Amino acid sequence: MTKVLIFGHQNPDTDAIASAISFAYLQNKLGVNAEAVALGEPNEETAYALNHFKVDAPRVVESCANETTQVMLVDHNEAQQSVGDIKELEVLAVVDHHRIANFETANPLYYRAEPVGCTNTIILKIFKEHGVDIPKEIAGMMLSAIVSDSLLFKSPTCTDEDVKAAKELAEIAGVDLESYGLEMLKAGTNLSTKTAVELINADAKTFPMADKSVRIGQVNTVDVNDVLSRQSELEEAMAKENADNGFDLFVLVITNILDSDSVILVVGEPKEKIETAFNVTLENNTAELAGVVSRKKQVVPPLTNAFNA
Amino acid sequence: MTKVLIFGHQNPDTDAIASAISFAYLQNKLGVNAEAVALGEPNEETAYALNHFKVDAPRVVESCANETTQVMLVDHNEAQQSVGDIKELEVLAVVDHHRIANFETANPLYYRAEPVGCTNTIILKIFKEHGVDIPKEIAGMMLSAIVSDSLLFKSPTCTDEDVKAAKELAEIAGVDLESYGLEMLKAGTNLSTKTAVELINADAKTFPMADKSVRIGQVNTVDVNDVLSRQSELEEAMAKENADNGFDLFVLVITNILDSDSVILVVGEPKEKIETAFNVTLENNTAELAGVVSRKKQVVPPLTNAFNA
Ligand SMILES: [Mn+2]
Ligand SMILES: [Mn+2]
Repeated sequence: MTKVLIFGHQNPDTDAIASAISFAYLQNKLGVNAEAVALGEPNEETAYALNHFKVDAPRVVESCANETTQVMLVDHNEAQQSVGDIKELEVLAVVDHHRIANFETANPLYYRAEPVGCTNTIILKIFKEHGVDIPKEIAGMMLSAIVSDSLLFKSPTCTDEDVKAAKELAEIAGVDLESYGLEMLKAGTNLSTKTAVELINADAKTFPMADKSVRIGQVNTVDVNDVLSRQSELEEAMAKENADNGFDLFVLVITNILDSDSVILVVGEPKEKIETAFNVTLENNTAELAGVVSRKKQVVPPLTNAFNA
Repeated sequence: MTKVLIFGHQNPDTDAIASAISFAYLQNKLGVNAEAVALGEPNEETAYALNHFKVDAPRVVESCANETTQVMLVDHNEAQQSVGDIKELEVLAVVDHHRIANFETANPLYYRAEPVGCTNTIILKIFKEHGVDIPKEIAGMMLSAIVSDSLLFKSPTCTDEDVKAAKELAEIAGVDLESYGLEMLKAGTNLSTKTAVELINADAKTFPMADKSVRIGQVNTVDVNDVLSRQSELEEAMAKENADNGFDLFVLVITNILDSDSVILVVGEPKEKIETAFNVTLENNTAELAGVVSRKKQVVPPLTNAFNA
């Protein structure tokens, strides 16, 4: 039997890396010869968690068909987010919490998706269904993923099941959920080493709205002013991205993970759609959005509505 | 809240109908306002099971968007096997045991697939995970689905989990698994009311092999000679289908569900590929295939290999 490779999406976040580690551990316990790999290096937040729980970062791969024929996908399913040669591989299993799209198999497979806040919340269930104990360091990584995806339970994508799973995993991992979680999130907010271009593009996605192209990026921080102190440099980079890529409007959502508010910085037109969408008045291209932390649930929908009104 | 409609595939078999009934029962217990419907009338086998357990046949619908916005799919996922207006509906959940293809959602959803022999084997697990008791008549329908999809455990698609689930459900339903199962399968083999064209097309699928188009149909029976007594009428119908649709070769697999053997009846060319594939000599256009019951696992692969050799 060849080795089954298990991996999360490209540009891996903590859930993508931790899901691969936890699901590969489970598969090995179930008798599958599996290895967790990753489609990129861990970010600083993930590196903090790996270091804390003394877990090795998964080996980074660029392709899989050169070493195996069978894979399992975690925290994603869409082909364009997956390994480049996914079409040449047989997908044996998927565990995910995203929509399903651009995904197709030739054979029946194991597919487990639920509309919860984190893939590791589902993986915890699967561990229980098989009666497999979770070692301390694996529980720590799973917990870190839930904290990351839910912004310590502040994101509207977080469900009761995620909170319950995180508490249970913190117990096994032997950490204080709140204090560990906050330290880990803070470790991911070290923005000083990033250039303005890196900062605005980390996590940015493009959304067509009416006849405009809107680019929305997001950065997490513990001090919004830390980011805003680089405003002119950021605006310059955003204007250049707009010009180079045909974006009409660039919105950078700067999220304070401590008080769960955001400030948006806006470059391009039509700015009045921003003011309508969030019922704010832009001052010096910025506005405070109280209670907003989720792009998917709190930024894209009102902005889409404003464009379509 | 509008009512959530739950249904299996077009041309429903016993698993498609029973999955809708059992999963709708579970969803209602979980607080969802759900109704089992069907994309066609029950076949004779399914009608036997419904009658035996005194369960009403689900209402047949041709579209859903006229009465709801949200649906759950069982025993299928591919759009072309689903309700005609599937693209206008939000899919909240899928429970299935087939490959995934031509399926896409805008939102995260509940998706549960496992490579087992029957959808109801998976639904039984979900009942247990939620600690919901299964009423006698629902257990009877679930059991009937497993017997149907596995040909009373004789199909190579059947797994240990399917056998275990069926035994457990027979206990709840209060029936003798073997005798009830055989009676139900026999009820589905009443071929006398079918025309030759209906018979060869029931369940037929087209497979491109090398540069040829091969049509393969399958009928279940308790007496192969009963079917073969109509050989000349069947051959005539098969030849006409070939001519009308450009098929090169038509293979009718006549499966004896009692002894789990099949006889094939072949019209068209190249017949020698049949002889190579199954290591048989055709006599009067027929050959016995000992132990063959599954088109998917035992007919298509060797025939494909013979064409590609
Ligand atoms: Mn995730
Ligand atoms: Mn089925």
